[in-house]
Amino acid sequence: MSDLSHFQPLDAGAIPRFAGASTFMRLPAASPGGVDIALVGVPFDGGTTNRTGPRHGPREIRNQSSLCRRVHHVSLTSPFDLLRVADCGDSPVNPVDKEESLAAITGFFEQIRDAGAVPLTAGGDHLITLPVLRGLHKGSPRALIHFDAHTDTYDEIFGTKYNHGTPFRRAVEEGLLDPERMIQIGLRGAISHGTNYDWARDVGIRLVFIEELRKRGLADVMAEAKALVGADETYVSFDIDVIDPAYAPGTGTPEIGGITSFEAQSLVRMLSGVNIVGADVVEVSPPLDPSGITALTGATMMFELLCVMAEGMAAKKAD
Amino acid sequence: MSDLSHFQPLDAGAIPRFAGASTFMRLPAASPGGVDIALVGVPFDGGTTNRTGPRHGPREIRNQSSLCRRVHHVSLTSPFDLLRVADCGDSPVNPVDKEESLAAITGFFEQIRDAGAVPLTAGGDHLITLPVLRGLHKGSPRALIHFDAHTDTYDEIFGTKYNHGTPFRRAVEEGLLDPERMIQIGLRGAISHGTNYDWARDVGIRLVFIEELRKRGLADVMAEAKALVGADETYVSFDIDVIDPAYAPGTGTPEIGGITSFEAQSLVRMLSGVNIVGADVVEVSPPLDPSGITALTGATMMFELLCVMAEGMAAKKAD
Amino acid sequence: MSDLSHFQPLDAGAIPRFAGASTFMRLPAASPGGVDIALVGVPFDGGTTNRTGPRHGPREIRNQSSLCRRVHHVSLTSPFDLLRVADCGDSPVNPVDKEESLAAITGFFEQIRDAGAVPLTAGGDHLITLPVLRGLHKGSPRALIHFDAHTDTYDEIFGTKYNHGTPFRRAVEEGLLDPERMIQIGLRGAISHGTNYDWARDVGIRLVFIEELRKRGLADVMAEAKALVGADETYVSFDIDVIDPAYAPGTGTPEIGGITSFEAQSLVRMLSGVNIVGADVVEVSPPLDPSGITALTGATMMFELLCVMAEGMAAKKAD
Amino acid sequence: MSDLSHFQPLDAGAIPRFAGASTFMRLPAASPGGVDIALVGVPFDGGTTNRTGPRHGPREIRNQSSLCRRVHHVSLTSPFDLLRVADCGDSPVNPVDKEESLAAITGFFEQIRDAGAVPLTAGGDHLITLPVLRGLHKGSPRALIHFDAHTDTYDEIFGTKYNHGTPFRRAVEEGLLDPERMIQIGLRGAISHGTNYDWARDVGIRLVFIEELRKRGLADVMAEAKALVGADETYVSFDIDVIDPAYAPGTGTPEIGGITSFEAQSLVRMLSGVNIVGADVVEVSPPLDPSGITALTGATMMFELLCVMAEGMAAKKAD
Amino acid sequence: MSDLSHFQPLDAGAIPRFAGASTFMRLPAASPGGVDIALVGVPFDGGTTNRTGPRHGPREIRNQSSLCRRVHHVSLTSPFDLLRVADCGDSPVNPVDKEESLAAITGFFEQIRDAGAVPLTAGGDHLITLPVLRGLHKGSPRALIHFDAHTDTYDEIFGTKYNHGTPFRRAVEEGLLDPERMIQIGLRGAISHGTNYDWARDVGIRLVFIEELRKRGLADVMAEAKALVGADETYVSFDIDVIDPAYAPGTGTPEIGGITSFEAQSLVRMLSGVNIVGADVVEVSPPLDPSGITALTGATMMFELLCVMAEGMAAKKAD
Amino acid sequence: MSDLSHFQPLDAGAIPRFAGASTFMRLPAASPGGVDIALVGVPFDGGTTNRTGPRHGPREIRNQSSLCRRVHHVSLTSPFDLLRVADCGDSPVNPVDKEESLAAITGFFEQIRDAGAVPLTAGGDHLITLPVLRGLHKGSPRALIHFDAHTDTYDEIFGTKYNHGTPFRRAVEEGLLDPERMIQIGLRGAISHGTNYDWARDVGIRLVFIEELRKRGLADVMAEAKALVGADETYVSFDIDVIDPAYAPGTGTPEIGGITSFEAQSLVRMLSGVNIVGADVVEVSPPLDPSGITALTGATMMFELLCVMAEGMAAKKAD
Repeated sequence: MSDLSHFQPLDAGAIPRFAGASTFMRLPAASPGGVDIALVGVPFDGGTTNRTGPRHGPREIRNQSSLCRRVHHVSLTSPFDLLRVADCGDSPVNPVDKEESLAAITGFFEQIRDAGAVPLTAGGDHLITLPVLRGLHKGSPRALIHFDAHTDTYDEIFGTKYNHGTPFRRAVEEGLLDPERMIQIGLRGAISHGTNYDWARDVGIRLVFIEELRKRGLADVMAEAKALVGADETYVSFDIDVIDPAYAPGTGTPEIGGITSFEAQSLVRMLSGVNIVGADVVEVSPPLDPSGITALTGATMMFELLCVMAEGMAAKKAD
Repeated sequence: MSDLSHFQPLDAGAIPRFAGASTFMRLPAASPGGVDIALVGVPFDGGTTNRTGPRHGPREIRNQSSLCRRVHHVSLTSPFDLLRVADCGDSPVNPVDKEESLAAITGFFEQIRDAGAVPLTAGGDHLITLPVLRGLHKGSPRALIHFDAHTDTYDEIFGTKYNHGTPFRRAVEEGLLDPERMIQIGLRGAISHGTNYDWARDVGIRLVFIEELRKRGLADVMAEAKALVGADETYVSFDIDVIDPAYAPGTGTPEIGGITSFEAQSLVRMLSGVNIVGADVVEVSPPLDPSGITALTGATMMFELLCVMAEGMAAKKAD
Repeated sequence: MSDLSHFQPLDAGAIPRFAGASTFMRLPAASPGGVDIALVGVPFDGGTTNRTGPRHGPREIRNQSSLCRRVHHVSLTSPFDLLRVADCGDSPVNPVDKEESLAAITGFFEQIRDAGAVPLTAGGDHLITLPVLRGLHKGSPRALIHFDAHTDTYDEIFGTKYNHGTPFRRAVEEGLLDPERMIQIGLRGAISHGTNYDWARDVGIRLVFIEELRKRGLADVMAEAKALVGADETYVSFDIDVIDPAYAPGTGTPEIGGITSFEAQSLVRMLSGVNIVGADVVEVSPPLDPSGITALTGATMMFELLCVMAEGMAAKKAD
Repeated sequence: MSDLSHFQPLDAGAIPRFAGASTFMRLPAASPGGVDIALVGVPFDGGTTNRTGPRHGPREIRNQSSLCRRVHHVSLTSPFDLLRVADCGDSPVNPVDKEESLAAITGFFEQIRDAGAVPLTAGGDHLITLPVLRGLHKGSPRALIHFDAHTDTYDEIFGTKYNHGTPFRRAVEEGLLDPERMIQIGLRGAISHGTNYDWARDVGIRLVFIEELRKRGLADVMAEAKALVGADETYVSFDIDVIDPAYAPGTGTPEIGGITSFEAQSLVRMLSGVNIVGADVVEVSPPLDPSGITALTGATMMFELLCVMAEGMAAKKAD
Repeated sequence: MSDLSHFQPLDAGAIPRFAGASTFMRLPAASPGGVDIALVGVPFDGGTTNRTGPRHGPREIRNQSSLCRRVHHVSLTSPFDLLRVADCGDSPVNPVDKEESLAAITGFFEQIRDAGAVPLTAGGDHLITLPVLRGLHKGSPRALIHFDAHTDTYDEIFGTKYNHGTPFRRAVEEGLLDPERMIQIGLRGAISHGTNYDWARDVGIRLVFIEELRKRGLADVMAEAKALVGADETYVSFDIDVIDPAYAPGTGTPEIGGITSFEAQSLVRMLSGVNIVGADVVEVSPPLDPSGITALTGATMMFELLCVMAEGMAAKKAD
Repeated sequence: MSDLSHFQPLDAGAIPRFAGASTFMRLPAASPGGVDIALVGVPFDGGTTNRTGPRHGPREIRNQSSLCRRVHHVSLTSPFDLLRVADCGDSPVNPVDKEESLAAITGFFEQIRDAGAVPLTAGGDHLITLPVLRGLHKGSPRALIHFDAHTDTYDEIFGTKYNHGTPFRRAVEEGLLDPERMIQIGLRGAISHGTNYDWARDVGIRLVFIEELRKRGLADVMAEAKALVGADETYVSFDIDVIDPAYAPGTGTPEIGGITSFEAQSLVRMLSGVNIVGADVVEVSPPLDPSGITALTGATMMFELLCVMAEGMAAKKAD
């Protein structure tokens, strides 16, 4: 495990958290070829139909992630003691060309896939999950556990098929995800038409609204989610707007009545044992976040995801 | 129902939410004569004894209400498919003359009443509820379901009988409200004198503090509220400060320890079946709301109220 | 002139400036067919390569324009006493499709042109000036007086020809503008390559850097500008970033060392006599403008432009 | 001069500027009876017709005035070495009763006048200057040097004669000010009607617009001002909005194109020799001032006024 | 009890909450010699290793405490009717000399102790609790009930033994606190090393993580806490970061997933009966608190602590 | 010059300015050994006696410096085409130990000096200039051109000799600077005692107050400055508070009435030909800078300094 020494966060008891240029969790920069888990950014918001700004998400999440530490206080394990984790930089994007960006992001994640690393991504708006899934694709559709206020399964908005409200429909259509092993948790907020959820239900996606989540309890819902995905390769997508805007105001399509950050942490910790092949935290919009707590929450949720991913991957490796 | 087509929000899949001048929920402007529910503003804060700013509430609530959508995600009904709803503008007010403003607001709501519309109002400070009730008055006192951190039943502050801490006492004294069918929910926060609640209790107003609300649960308290008002004509007043300042910091007299926005939504949804003859959301102060989430919460609470009002009115119509 | 009574701002001594939904300068909404000068918005920022947000410009400029008044304090004439001016709404745009947006904006301004109105536009990022010019085109290239920190005459950024750094190059290439009657004033800020200005100079555009402007004085430079455009049809484009970020922090590509707002007003007032066929104020980005002064400055510059446009058009009419 | 030792600011080299409750310039609290110059607040904004908030001005100016120091860097004299200066608290006001507030403020300044102190006041909106002048009145009208973007000589707004746009008209009508010895400097911004300035000019008030001020230079205009008031008892009113919103964004009726803070300081320093019987700094609105620089500017302008007042009073005393 | 009349908050129905210089809860200033409970500030943040700013805490908590009232709404008793409470000012500190500050703070609290007053302190960063405890020391170690996200029991950070991460270890080592009667509640957040808690557990400190707190419920944990400290002299330290950053964003080391402000109030109310010899609220950092709710929360938690302290002290006195 | 290709900023036409972790001006990270000019940060504010926060300066300046470009628009030369420039990281500091920090900073700059690089530093508060000068010392005192609102030549504040108000006195005493070749430009703001400037004048430092600067003009003063330092090794220290707080609000000791950013740029450009052996930009405090323009201004001033330094060094090399 000696090579892990190259992949440690800066020591915050020697180098202040506010010092230096900020990488994710104060980790070294590296290329995906040499790491197990690649922390990356996708600074693209060209799919945003409402309030804008998540192109600035990766940088500000990096900035706030300086407050992250090494060891999870519940599990007492450190991802950095289990696997090689590094900041592998940002995907190339073209802020004024959506199609080119989709292609470039796809290519970036193909490289990560081909390098054998598992990506944990900071968005960007939710459209980026589509090219991430394309890039990580390996032939058969993955399962999905998706935390969000919205299903993001529209067919079209503004007559376009590629925007932050459509990625999961496209991903199903393209065979990247298997709708019958997809679960969306934390849904809420008024909708444009009463038929908005029909497609998702027709193809078999499991929709868990906040009301059901609160009524059944988090553990019960997560048990169902884990049963649904089983040991299959699963992607986890975390839209920051699943959390209530009191906790995460800096996002483009906020919906009141959401989960707390404690509940968000609890949900992610219950992913333990899931075979995660990639994850993301999206829709953090720093220009709409005057106190910075949204980016801090995004960074902390990445750490929670990292812990559960690292434990699972390390256990598999050890087998 | 063909005439409802004139009273639809702009299509957010064709016209972006951030485009154009902002009306409530992107509805057309109309006069109260042609609508069932009139969304109106009362941009007056001359009754504010503490931190100021709710005169700017109606405009910023309109702005944030661009994020509202058409169909409630739980009931799956849309108010805009049931009734004619429109933005009927702001009441005339005189920012430097309280008495004249009270008279002007009263007159504005008399017009709404006489036009046969039911108003859903964005304040303004809580004093505005008094002239609203005066304008809507029809001879006998109404019942009241009131969500607030404060009872607003002082006799006088600064030696004046008309300010944002006194409207409900005045309304009882004037026969606008029947104290024995009044319930105030979510009360909390230190008070000026131990006798502050005496008058309210003496006249029979039901006071539900946050501690009781949390202990009994929302459903139990709301069952009591609905039993109290029965089928009587009921006014609903929603002071944004009933919600915790984490969710709604932009208000003049914030009290920590409040309800969550999810709880606020739950409470309002439980109003289903109440015979609502008017409602308001007051005390949103945009200058104190750097992230805008208070106005967004105000707008969303208006949508929740609109849904429950429209369902009730449509059912009655259908009878 | 009796029909002007329909095109007056709300009386701020009777209806408070903060009341009601906000239109530009509190004017009535109207279609371009019935007006002389059409105040319009183009809420599009899909051409933005840096910090984002001007899609929210038109709405917030409308909001702040509530502080505008009726009569210019220097000339003592009121545009609203000279011509019919109204808020003609926002151009259709597609926030997730740049090409479609360019076409839609072009079509919107063709309608304005065909209606015989002169547009005064609030952007949006600077790319929007290209489709505005396309829509207003009438066969021969126009002259241009352009206030900006940047020339916006790149050939390509990110390999794309259509973004907020390229509109004036495209406009020249398309025959919309005559480079020999183009002047750009207030230029400053480091550049990407020493050759950045070559094309502009080669085609004959007159570049006035801030250093020259300060050295010669505003009047001298504006005399040159007016001599350059003469009586020809001239478009005026005002990028808010020509003003120093102390005065206008809310913009995507701020450059320190700019002109003051007083200088900006002086420059625009000196346009008196220019044959203006359209004008815009662009790159106001509200999410980057915590105190709102950038949008206020944008609104006031629109009023300054409106006054000089109305005087010229009224004089021509009177001939 | 030994008693001056009781009226010294806290030593910032021993007690940090951020420590303790904040009084004006960290001076002791005292009653007007024992001081030469009384620093006071009037936290009232019930005359505000536009954006609100100056009720919070005195407290935040006190807070920022902790950065003030003892000795003026140009004159090298200290007001605290010349005269007894103290924080004499805030005038009583009634935030929900304008008439009562006007009376209470008048009474407060009568006490200051009768105590023989000269007040330097932090507002509040500009209406407060009227009761200040009433309270300080001694039989004959005073001269006025007035720095402002607006003349505040309306007859009525919203049909009321008492609001922040009318105090100087009322003061002339009431014989508190002599219009022929009144000068208003820094005027600018569009106006509601072309006749707005007629009354002021008719009664003989000297109006100096920003354009004239810039053209003639500050010294020339101030020489005229000083010639106009001569040795007569003069009141100085400083509306923070005379300064450009880049320097002072936190005010209710900002007008772009104003003077710089350096120019503001220069103007006030040129008051040297004027027989000042009272002065104020008004219209600082902290809720609209996210960076705090408006209140800092207000505090520093109070220090500049204090220096010129103290020098004059000390010289007179020494005669 | 007649002397209590000198120690009453200003009457908010006569003197507006926003008027005057701000003392804690609008109480009179006094020296500790004449009071029972001394509200004091320690504006020192020289122990801060991360994001900075709590030196500004006492002043802004004073400012926001103007919204506090007189009577607790649950217990209906007023601390001001039970005991003499006053604002006893800020401790001397040296912002650029940590050692001197520690000594000065110690001296300040020795004076309070020797005067027989019980201090309720607004920090400052958490390092200040160490000199507070030193100053209050009377020979035998005290018990501690400590609300915090962090244990603050590091041995060293940056090689120094005195910083905001170490005060409780030092206090145990110095015999100021008895580790076996210490309980820390609300702990959470990742840690630097898996061994971080070892020392605390070894010496017998009871650590209650948020997960245990939520699982067992607040009442159960507080019953344990009260059993632990019994009737012994107990210090209560409340780090604002025990509350979730949604409720208290303005702090230097925020940790998501914290308790709500309602839970915080509940916990403090359950301290009833504890023999409190001193308490503090620390780590409020106003520069990181754009909406001011963190300072408001800090002020309200001080009021909650004051109530429980006053009740206990009054009961003891009455014995 | 081929090796310069390794020291180029990222191409902003290919990689968006908002992408990736932020280094100074998007340059590569490097050690001082391989570069000509080392861009470094000193994130220390332990010398701050007033409002705090410049420890966060280097990171936020890095962030905003992403907007910097390659070529100066006046000189049309690029520093990156002349010399090797890189981000050499932050000096080690200890946020809770001033003495240790002074030593660590000194050591860091000794390494830069010994490596033969010239440092351009982002602070940190102004105390950092002392250890920078110590580290760069080579036996004989340097000349100094110093832009600041304050002389920073106190002997002691709070009884300590090392804080942000004393570095230049210490530097003279230690023989690091030659007072007779020191000039301080832009001074203003009230002072604590009339004798504050005596020491500086006694030892021969040239003090240029803002009033003299404005009266004589920038060019005249800079000619004097350049004559004073001649061809001697000169350090340039730029305190951001020399610029008016309208342009740079985010600083701890703001003084109104300062220079504009355009004037600041002009002054620095006139340094052409000075033999600069090091420079800094200090006192940028991001927590006090809600719009980010202070950090942007700091970054741009670093670019201006870089250009003038690179030109001089390249010319010398070429000799």
